[in-house]
Amino acid sequence: MHFASDNTSPVPPQILDALIAANHGYAMPYGADAIMAEVRTAIRETFEAPDAEVYLVATGTAANALSLSLLCPPWATVFCHRNAHIEEDECAAPEFYTGGAKLTLVEGADARLTPEALREAIGFAARGGVHNVQRGAVSITNATEHGTVYSAAEVSALSAVAADYDLPVHMDGARFANALVATGATPAEMTWKAGIDVLSFGGTKNGCMGVEAVVLFDPAHAWEFELRRKRGGHLFSKHRYLSAQMAAYLKDGLWLKLAARANDAAARLSQGLAALDRAELLHPTEANAVFAAFPREAHRRAQAAGAQYYLWPMDQSLEGPGDVPLSARMVCSWCTTDEEVDALLAIVRGD
Amino acid sequence: MHFASDNTSPVPPQILDALIAANHGYAMPYGADAIMAEVRTAIRETFEAPDAEVYLVATGTAANALSLSLLCPPWATVFCHRNAHIEEDECAAPEFYTGGAKLTLVEGADARLTPEALREAIGFAARGGVHNVQRGAVSITNATEHGTVYSAAEVSALSAVAADYDLPVHMDGARFANALVATGATPAEMTWKAGIDVLSFGGTKNGCMGVEAVVLFDPAHAWEFELRRKRGGHLFSKHRYLSAQMAAYLKDGLWLKLAARANDAAARLSQGLAALDRAELLHPTEANAVFAAFPREAHRRAQAAGAQYYLWPMDQSLEGPGDVPLSARMVCSWCTTDEEVDALLAIVRGD
Amino acid sequence: MHFASDNTSPVPPQILDALIAANHGYAMPYGADAIMAEVRTAIRETFEAPDAEVYLVATGTAANALSLSLLCPPWATVFCHRNAHIEEDECAAPEFYTGGAKLTLVEGADARLTPEALREAIGFAARGGVHNVQRGAVSITNATEHGTVYSAAEVSALSAVAADYDLPVHMDGARFANALVATGATPAEMTWKAGIDVLSFGGTKNGCMGVEAVVLFDPAHAWEFELRRKRGGHLFSKHRYLSAQMAAYLKDGLWLKLAARANDAAARLSQGLAALDRAELLHPTEANAVFAAFPREAHRRAQAAGAQYYLWPMDQSLEGPGDVPLSARMVCSWCTTDEEVDALLAIVRGD
Amino acid sequence: MHFASDNTSPVPPQILDALIAANHGYAMPYGADAIMAEVRTAIRETFEAPDAEVYLVATGTAANALSLSLLCPPWATVFCHRNAHIEEDECAAPEFYTGGAKLTLVEGADARLTPEALREAIGFAARGGVHNVQRGAVSITNATEHGTVYSAAEVSALSAVAADYDLPVHMDGARFANALVATGATPAEMTWKAGIDVLSFGGTKNGCMGVEAVVLFDPAHAWEFELRRKRGGHLFSKHRYLSAQMAAYLKDGLWLKLAARANDAAARLSQGLAALDRAELLHPTEANAVFAAFPREAHRRAQAAGAQYYLWPMDQSLEGPGDVPLSARMVCSWCTTDEEVDALLAIVRGD
Repeated sequence: MHFASDNTSPVPPQILDALIAANHGYAMPYGADAIMAEVRTAIRETFEAPDAEVYLVATGTAANALSLSLLCPPWATVFCHRNAHIEEDECAAPEFYTGGAKLTLVEGADARLTPEALREAIGFAARGGVHNVQRGAVSITNATEHGTVYSAAEVSALSAVAADYDLPVHMDGARFANALVATGATPAEMTWKAGIDVLSFGGTKNGCMGVEAVVLFDPAHAWEFELRRKRGGHLFSKHRYLSAQMAAYLKDGLWLKLAARANDAAARLSQGLAALDRAELLHPTEANAVFAAFPREAHRRAQAAGAQYYLWPMDQSLEGPGDVPLSARMVCSWCTTDEEVDALLAIVRGD
Repeated sequence: MHFASDNTSPVPPQILDALIAANHGYAMPYGADAIMAEVRTAIRETFEAPDAEVYLVATGTAANALSLSLLCPPWATVFCHRNAHIEEDECAAPEFYTGGAKLTLVEGADARLTPEALREAIGFAARGGVHNVQRGAVSITNATEHGTVYSAAEVSALSAVAADYDLPVHMDGARFANALVATGATPAEMTWKAGIDVLSFGGTKNGCMGVEAVVLFDPAHAWEFELRRKRGGHLFSKHRYLSAQMAAYLKDGLWLKLAARANDAAARLSQGLAALDRAELLHPTEANAVFAAFPREAHRRAQAAGAQYYLWPMDQSLEGPGDVPLSARMVCSWCTTDEEVDALLAIVRGD
Repeated sequence: MHFASDNTSPVPPQILDALIAANHGYAMPYGADAIMAEVRTAIRETFEAPDAEVYLVATGTAANALSLSLLCPPWATVFCHRNAHIEEDECAAPEFYTGGAKLTLVEGADARLTPEALREAIGFAARGGVHNVQRGAVSITNATEHGTVYSAAEVSALSAVAADYDLPVHMDGARFANALVATGATPAEMTWKAGIDVLSFGGTKNGCMGVEAVVLFDPAHAWEFELRRKRGGHLFSKHRYLSAQMAAYLKDGLWLKLAARANDAAARLSQGLAALDRAELLHPTEANAVFAAFPREAHRRAQAAGAQYYLWPMDQSLEGPGDVPLSARMVCSWCTTDEEVDALLAIVRGD
Repeated sequence: MHFASDNTSPVPPQILDALIAANHGYAMPYGADAIMAEVRTAIRETFEAPDAEVYLVATGTAANALSLSLLCPPWATVFCHRNAHIEEDECAAPEFYTGGAKLTLVEGADARLTPEALREAIGFAARGGVHNVQRGAVSITNATEHGTVYSAAEVSALSAVAADYDLPVHMDGARFANALVATGATPAEMTWKAGIDVLSFGGTKNGCMGVEAVVLFDPAHAWEFELRRKRGGHLFSKHRYLSAQMAAYLKDGLWLKLAARANDAAARLSQGLAALDRAELLHPTEANAVFAAFPREAHRRAQAAGAQYYLWPMDQSLEGPGDVPLSARMVCSWCTTDEEVDALLAIVRGD
């Protein structure tokens, strides 16, 4: 019963096998390996974007911060949701990589931006001429930090707001596959056709050891990206091992299958909880994370039984009256089993 | 009728005379001038702080950003009001000088922080361990951007919250003199006795050509400050001309007299407006700025008569129905006359 | 006998009078003052550059660092002389403002770059693709830190090397007037006609209180410059006092007269020393600084008589055998008198 | 015949097996995995440093830049050899991570610092008070970029110079194992006993997929390091895969065996070349890299036969008279075979 995060999971055999297969003979370093050429082609085909440039890094924070540094100068601001990973979970990496840009935090239910709120935030910003930061970029997280997703149409609506102000749009797709599976959109529909300029295309949370692709749909700043990646210490010498993961991830739709499995597990958990009087869903379960409240006593039993997940927010206490509801985040991954889900449900039910 | 800002005013004769007097013979550069020694002594005496270190820079943004860079590391956040100058009017200078720290924006009426809101914001921050930015510092603006002031006791209450989290406290005192005059506190009571670690002590808005003192009540990081100042390009070679302004500003309480005059003018304007049915004060007038709404038609007449002030927010339009109230910011300075105030009041009244 | 630096001098009456004249009534802040419009026009005319954009800051370090940040990205390097002010005297301000660019130090006698040495340095750089910093910009100091000057033709020859690599060229003209007077070139010949893209046009060392102009001969990045200036805390609210200095400095060729006086004084000192058996010039005296060695005993007498100048390098000692030659830097300014020069010469001669 | 770099090699089976073994079940992320606890213990034991703190990152540039950012403030300089990796091969990552510190380049034969040259460089720096950058740290590369090594005694001598100025010392140990094997020193003797404060302990070049340890012998700034690592995007979520590599690398002295093999291969190649009239060694071969010159015609034959190595410097041309000697860098790794070495030698000999 491991629901702590999708980053506590192991790697599926296809990806491990690809690493093993890559481990023969010499290979050119720093992205000049033959597998990277395959990856580039595969991503271009997957996204129907023959001109896109593709770069690999090992962490989502690196992918996001480097991407934003390409889009937003130091004297500008990135419009994002208050609960975005770039705001809450990256220890000011975007500020570091941009050289001191701001994040302007936009409110919205379920960690989702609305076009109206985004427009208001952009409109309000930069009204003081040289005195305040300028409008820089928009960043959209899909799937969101609260387990919800944007449809391609919703992304388009947000990008249209950005376009009204000539702002580029970044998508934090650490859980891009989960969003895609949930919506049924194609990769192209969800990205460049919906106005996305740069995508952080996540691999790690969805099954890889540690690899994310940055996809630049407009390759104009590709060389700048390469220099920024190197300067950030994110250019791998033995790059083939990043390439191999990503190649296997993309092959035969593995990435979508892994995400589908995670989403299905979350749906099962969510539906199971929703059926209980004692439990309440806190956000719609649209991807692979379930946010729900249920009695403290059930949490105590779950933890005693070895279930792993975070009380969310984390400063709630298991001590106290048993009938008080505590809220929790439970994340499913490609390797979550129905048995795990059912076991947790049984505990919450009090079986 | 000039109420656009306190930075559109000229310099009082005492300060000009001091510049003229300083302009004889050679003087050691970079702060080693004899006048700077006087300034240091005068500020230490004024603040009853014999160990304080004192440095001069030419702009308020430099004073604030350098001060914050001393208190807040790049991976931490500065808690401040949403309307603070460091957030709204410094084009990310704090982010630049700190190396990418965040500002955490706290809400509060009349541009004032409350201890409760501050505590909630600090408590909420840094709950994710290494993943999010750490708690860095608190910055308090006195007088505030909305013309209100904190009493020394109110500053102490805010500092006490900061102290609970071991956070240092900065005061943006661009209008420190106005706050002091308004409250009757001594400089010491308003600063180190109330928990302030570093003060941006404003000179420019209150009558100087361009000089602000940074007062480090704890001199432990004085040398670091000197290096940061130099590296920021804020160390003046012909430093005597900064020193001379500040020396004259402090001499015989000139700084307090200038602020008193500005505050009195604002009070006269505020009271005059408050007496009108057609006008409404938007914030209490406690220092030298008046925020009020009155009919568009009166604004049109005022502007036609050459009155200078900003509609606030700036995106309101003078075009449209004359009876719609528009809000405005009107700032008084050391050289605002009662005649100017009365002339504006007459126009608003429709005399 | 004050030869410590040209920044220990007072301000000539024309500049002080301009400040006094500017100190009437209200003036729009932040560079929107009427005097700034005059300054802009005057500089455009002086440089025969009607499209140039002109901005004022208060220190040479700010002018240089901001200029370089416009020309050189964080992953590139600025080619400059090993003794350049940007390397030796700005506490890494260029690194700070560029966001971490390097300076590549080029050797050359008398603090002067040669086209050959510059070409070799540029050619050597950036040969490792993405692994090393890229070629960014060239910075030329005129007059140099060792009191020599480049002719316009020499500047052109350096710019031609930069042009071969598509690199922009910055001139640190903290002592631009001294170089101009020394060479007889026009401002245009020395700058844009010789391939200079951005000029730090010094006022402070040559008589102003504290003002430098940054002249962008190509205005394409003017708005970026304005944002960088603000973000660095270098935008003055009471900007008229910068404008007034610069306007007076330019009026009726004052700037050239001041520099001519300083150069003449240095020439007199240099020639007087050269005529002595016991003294040796260390660099040609082409602007307003004299570098010479003479016996320790003469230094002791000079210092005893109150002469002010720096032993150069500074770590030489006045203690020891009297006949050992020590080297010194003696800088003349607009207010250096022949009497001061002759008095120092008399001491060195041993009169 | 692959001598392009030690980063073109595959991974030895022990490390791959460790990855496979680690790939079971759930593991806590971000360094809280059980294998990391083993790694920490192993490194502490290996270095006889029970209080050391140990962190893993994936690239050498990250290890170096993060380490230096801990030791050197933005207004200071790192003393290093002109050919150091941090200068030549990291695209200003140290400048980026330190926030704009400088590197002061010290000359020395065979990419080695001498105490005398280091002392002179440190002594020369920071003589201008606040005006220039301060002395920050010393960085020593062992093995060096030219395939030479420092003995523990030589490291101590360099550290003693640093200690005279109270400067911390960093060792870039991307090829630490090669240096250790070459000198016979223990890990402790080569590091903290020789005055090293922070070590970049390389894994990647010596056989890992991509992992470097940063060893802080003084744990005082451990938390700061963790924040800097996260903010740089270098904290891995699925950290177990870094841990597993490093654990296997350390186990049963694998790291030393791999390095011994690489060094032996280089020695064989070096000796073979030295025995030829037509070849000349350019640096002593003390670790795993051979620098030698031999006739262009031999290079042409080698390249035609598929040998991979870099002409060094890279801008030499294979076109031209065949008897002209060209210089080359040939790097051996853990998987270089005697057959490969002999094949290359045969080609150079002209067999």
